[in-house]
Amino acid sequence: MIKTVKTVKQLRAAVAAWRKRGLSVGFVPTMGFLHAGHQSLIKKAAAQNDRTVVSIFVNPMQFGPKEDLAKYPRDLAADKKACAAAGAHLIFCPEAGEMYPPAFAARVEISGVSEGLCGASRPGHFTGVATVVAKLFNIVQADRAYFGQKDAQQLAVIRRMAADLNINTRIISCPIVRGSDGLALSSRNAYLNARERQAALCISRALAAGRKMLEGGARSALKVEAAVRATINKEPLAKIDYVKIVDPQTMRPVRQINGAVLCAAAVFIGKTRLIDNFIFGA
Amino acid sequence: MIKTVKTVKQLRAAVAAWRKRGLSVGFVPTMGFLHAGHQSLIKKAAAQNDRTVVSIFVNPMQFGPKEDLAKYPRDLAADKKACAAAGAHLIFCPEAGEMYPPAFAARVEISGVSEGLCGASRPGHFTGVATVVAKLFNIVQADRAYFGQKDAQQLAVIRRMAADLNINTRIISCPIVRGSDGLALSSRNAYLNARERQAALCISRALAAGRKMLEGGARSALKVEAAVRATINKEPLAKIDYVKIVDPQTMRPVRQINGAVLCAAAVFIGKTRLIDNFIFGA
Repeated sequence: MIKTVKTVKQLRAAVAAWRKRGLSVGFVPTMGFLHAGHQSLIKKAAAQNDRTVVSIFVNPMQFGPKEDLAKYPRDLAADKKACAAAGAHLIFCPEAGEMYPPAFAARVEISGVSEGLCGASRPGHFTGVATVVAKLFNIVQADRAYFGQKDAQQLAVIRRMAADLNINTRIISCPIVRGSDGLALSSRNAYLNARERQAALCISRALAAGRKMLEGGARSALKVEAAVRATINKEPLAKIDYVKIVDPQTMRPVRQINGAVLCAAAVFIGKTRLIDNFIFGA
Repeated sequence: MIKTVKTVKQLRAAVAAWRKRGLSVGFVPTMGFLHAGHQSLIKKAAAQNDRTVVSIFVNPMQFGPKEDLAKYPRDLAADKKACAAAGAHLIFCPEAGEMYPPAFAARVEISGVSEGLCGASRPGHFTGVATVVAKLFNIVQADRAYFGQKDAQQLAVIRRMAADLNINTRIISCPIVRGSDGLALSSRNAYLNARERQAALCISRALAAGRKMLEGGARSALKVEAAVRATINKEPLAKIDYVKIVDPQTMRPVRQINGAVLCAAAVFIGKTRLIDNFIFGA
């Protein structure tokens, strides 16, 4: 069975022992309930590093007061198997009190890139993400850390945070992994019933249509966004949070498309909020 | 002449070379214009570590718009000599653009401990301090970092920040160094003319009287604060910003003195804001 530690001290001791032997370290931070998307990150980490650490921590700081912290899906036994199968060497699964002791008072705020898209819909979310990832980076001190492109704004926030705080870990992004029906894999897909799952396919379908427009030469962000929205709005169970074409680094809105852009969507399917995106022109 | 580097890359390369040889690293962050107080930190670092890095960086982020960033005293040539004489091995003196490139967007906020005392008088100051010190800690990755007890609130903020962000550097505090007349050493003492220098002695004198009251058994913080204020107010050139008795870790006000307390003062002497303090009962 894969080794699992719960304290910062244990994690540091394990990494220090590897470092003494000159081994490189990859790191995949997760909130658990692992799927093939997470496993693609772990596999890449295992391929590029001598040792791979996976953290499993449902971070309370990144959930809003009305969000799904309490019911966020958890299955540590299955996660351990998924980590081992993908080639991880160590799991770090701290309790909340290990990460946030009573006197905890820090917040890592990343302005600009945190503010639109999911940041606008989920106030404080990216402060929670940036803070916990800064902590995890300092705990693990990996050579490389792996993040999914599915959470495109999270990736941009973490890149900015790591650069700005001079964190000596290289950030590596990995492509979105989809189900055979096209739905981007997400732990939150577990919330969907069969009818909602079917409805959720409108998101990837609409984004694929938007990409086709861009590939066909469309250069007006407003027109492409409108077309993506129209496709999603045909689905009665879907309620759009946002559909936006933005700069992939800064998340600033783009009007006329010249360079690389990120086309990102957040959509409620019933009560479940799902996100998906694609990058064009990179 | 002591080696001086200006970029993060150069600094990291130098530290990595030491680490390869198994050498321990001490770190003294400063804003330059070094005096015997800074030198006491460097000497302690040099005594406890194989190699000692001193950073010299007048951090724009910790100055308010109406504060003394532009006229803050600078003398790199003298600082190099002072570092070498105290036993430092390497100086890191980055330009502002190296620490804050154009896209910089991070803020490390430490609530609670940052909010009273100097934090109340200087909004944003401790966010600037916490942010730059988090960056410097991640750049140097020292075993130990040294801070003066003179900046008592800064020390408490940095302890909290380092603990909360899981920075693997031990924070070591060093006693206040005073001139033969009792004035706590500070780079800002350079702003004082002869008459102001004489007037500034009221601060250490008033604090010494406050300490005597505590040693004599006084336990009402209000009474001790009032006595310290009264002594300072006798000096016509002095204008009190605050005199407060607080918990040395949290900076929360104390009324009835039972455990260790910090008695801290900030006083304008003419246009120059000076701080001083003592700890009682630790």
